[in-house]
Amino acid sequence: MRLSRYFLPVLKETPSDAQIASHRLMLRAGMIKQNAAGIYSWLPLGYRVLRNIERIVHEEQQAAGHIPMLMPTLQPADLWRESGRYDAYGPEMLRIRDRHERDMLYGPTNEEMITDIFRSHVGSYRDLPLTLYHIQWKFRDEVRPRFGVMRGREFFMKDGYNFDLSYEDSMYAYDRHMVSYLRTYERMGLKAIPMRADSGPIGGDDTHEFLVLADTGESEVFYDAAITDLTLGDRQIDFDDRAGLRAICEEWTTPYARTDETHDAALFDQIPEEQRRTSRGIEVGQIFYFGTKYSEPMGATVVGPDGAKVPVHMGSHGIGVSRLVGALIEAHHDDNGIIWPEGVTPFHCGIVNLRQGDGDCDATCEKIDAALKAKGLDPLYDDRDERAGAKFATMDLIGLPWRITVGPRGLKNGVVELTSRKTGESEEMSLKAAVDRVGQIYARP
Amino acid sequence: MRLSRYFLPVLKETPSDAQIASHRLMLRAGMIKQNAAGIYSWLPLGYRVLRNIERIVHEEQQAAGHIPMLMPTLQPADLWRESGRYDAYGPEMLRIRDRHERDMLYGPTNEEMITDIFRSHVGSYRDLPLTLYHIQWKFRDEVRPRFGVMRGREFFMKDGYNFDLSYEDSMYAYDRHMVSYLRTYERMGLKAIPMRADSGPIGGDDTHEFLVLADTGESEVFYDAAITDLTLGDRQIDFDDRAGLRAICEEWTTPYARTDETHDAALFDQIPEEQRRTSRGIEVGQIFYFGTKYSEPMGATVVGPDGAKVPVHMGSHGIGVSRLVGALIEAHHDDNGIIWPEGVTPFHCGIVNLRQGDGDCDATCEKIDAALKAKGLDPLYDDRDERAGAKFATMDLIGLPWRITVGPRGLKNGVVELTSRKTGESEEMSLKAAVDRVGQIYARP
Repeated sequence: MRLSRYFLPVLKETPSDAQIASHRLMLRAGMIKQNAAGIYSWLPLGYRVLRNIERIVHEEQQAAGHIPMLMPTLQPADLWRESGRYDAYGPEMLRIRDRHERDMLYGPTNEEMITDIFRSHVGSYRDLPLTLYHIQWKFRDEVRPRFGVMRGREFFMKDGYNFDLSYEDSMYAYDRHMVSYLRTYERMGLKAIPMRADSGPIGGDDTHEFLVLADTGESEVFYDAAITDLTLGDRQIDFDDRAGLRAICEEWTTPYARTDETHDAALFDQIPEEQRRTSRGIEVGQIFYFGTKYSEPMGATVVGPDGAKVPVHMGSHGIGVSRLVGALIEAHHDDNGIIWPEGVTPFHCGIVNLRQGDGDCDATCEKIDAALKAKGLDPLYDDRDERAGAKFATMDLIGLPWRITVGPRGLKNGVVELTSRKTGESEEMSLKAAVDRVGQIYARP
Repeated sequence: MRLSRYFLPVLKETPSDAQIASHRLMLRAGMIKQNAAGIYSWLPLGYRVLRNIERIVHEEQQAAGHIPMLMPTLQPADLWRESGRYDAYGPEMLRIRDRHERDMLYGPTNEEMITDIFRSHVGSYRDLPLTLYHIQWKFRDEVRPRFGVMRGREFFMKDGYNFDLSYEDSMYAYDRHMVSYLRTYERMGLKAIPMRADSGPIGGDDTHEFLVLADTGESEVFYDAAITDLTLGDRQIDFDDRAGLRAICEEWTTPYARTDETHDAALFDQIPEEQRRTSRGIEVGQIFYFGTKYSEPMGATVVGPDGAKVPVHMGSHGIGVSRLVGALIEAHHDDNGIIWPEGVTPFHCGIVNLRQGDGDCDATCEKIDAALKAKGLDPLYDDRDERAGAKFATMDLIGLPWRITVGPRGLKNGVVELTSRKTGESEEMSLKAAVDRVGQIYARP
């Protein structure tokens, strides 16, 4: 993409109403624009990151055997009356009346609707196990939306629901979700810690939240430092291997890690003092097992192997897709701007032309642009007639992990400069070497 | 995908409340489920088609140089008060009040919001031309929703907006949209005819609707038979070539083609009688030029080359993504079910195992499944323990363009059967030949 043809409205000033780094940087980098309190447009750069995260979530859910579908944003109130949550949910539920005076709502979550779909179509244990998920816009009418997309009202979320015959099968689904979530965050370059949590309005006994450590997090968290060393790395995961999944979950849930809601000071004190950590955390996902909480009142039953009708065991599992954009920036930025992990970056590489209009520089930049595209990469070529300083500042602000700089002095020696956004280190090399290096970086499995 | 692990709730009975073929078939094939009047869930099979259409629309819009972004579903009413449309829009607009008693609405279209984004960030003619688009859920509170996703209330739509300095530049954007839309429909296997139309509540002078001919269409259309012979085929389109685009638009808009709203009987009678056609049509897209209708009241101006502030020329351009799923089925089905064009099919090829549990048959099916996947294709393997008749009926109903049938009799002779859903013709060949043939079909540019 040529920057002169793109829409990247970066701001020079720091917006005064943005209290945290990710909100400030998303506004400054031209990623979002607020349309109403807690409601944002995703400008082209922000939209690219949002789609990358969405794609990773899709890929990892499908790798775990979960099936994508899509439920609507609006729901009939009657479904929520069946579960008893219509009155219980409170003012965060956006209630709507249509032209025929029917009560509707903008879905804050989908347990009722998916249970209705299940009971309409599934009647036998032979159709189980089944895990359906979707990634859809949701709405929670927060009384005081803040922190940009981190606590918005309209937000993009993956929510998945498992239907199983037994508690054991449902816990296998729980484990699949925990492991697929760990993979998802790791692939995005994010360290998210599963913590025993409180189930809140979803209900249920077993639940873990995934938290990213950040000073600006809304929760206080307590954990054993050992957990931050855990990594899936290159491990091959077989999602059909129940015991293997269980072992991974054991590994991640054995070290103490809890939010303030479930914190147990006596247990925490048993950890060696030098390993005790207190921090703040941003919640980026949560998994629940809640058994028959919805299937029983809503009549979602199957005929079991013995011919008897039984309510199915269920759980639900969410990842905050739009919130992750903010969480990623909280975890990856410096004074100059964002530093995107390679897995989610909006463009793979920036190309900065230090002397726009110079025949050699222009031709070289175009060659690099074409060569990166031929490798299946998306470069952003800053072809504006701007000073070098302004071009570097923009690239640093929007945070592309790699930048190739082309100037007349280097070209005399047959070199361009490859710069890492993260380390700030630059290296001179031939055009071909720079393109190959960037290609290799993104070819990593 | 193995059907035994998938969620494909096909119905045996024809739903009594579905009046048109696409609605009946989408329900029977387990593509959608109604959640409320005019509000649907996209079950896994339907979701795949929806995403395929979305992907094609994205690719063709970006090929035309248009920039993707995403606006929210909910909008503040104040924006619509600025343009004067808040009161004018009528009861099809779903009006919402949030917990702080602020007036909101579920966006039926986005002219106001995109104009607000533009005026907040763009101030100079040097930032033009600019065309932004998004694909997002919208809501129109139809008094009598019907025909399934063809006239639903919550619907998925691509809408794009161009911002230009002059009328001429804006008409170039108009031409880009017309040609990119023609490409989009053709790639989906759909013949959509651009017809001079009425601008309705969007406003403006120049507008064309794109209509698919079908008995169940809501509009009466009048056209010269010559237009149905036009095709883009393999033509290379250069979207930077204004004259080339104009020539294509001339070609498509010269033969008479109008909806009942703009029909001119006297002009129509000048067509040779044997070429006059009257039919019904389904609207699947519309493009508008409306000049400064929004930019003027909302103050979306740029400083021109002469230093004077001028309101920008705008147009908007929509494709009904969810509606296209219905329109495609209206155009491509028979008594046995859907017949997907290869460009949008939910799975590329079905695999039918005639004797599930037979070692040879199972192994061969698994080999075919793996070989198709290795070619980057998505097969659907019917591995259920069902009669052959039931498996064929399901495959015909869900409409995959190609099917490979594996049975013990054929395997004795070293052959499987490749069947075209469209022609019903079958051919026996080796496993490798069948896989290669399917690979070739989808490798077409």
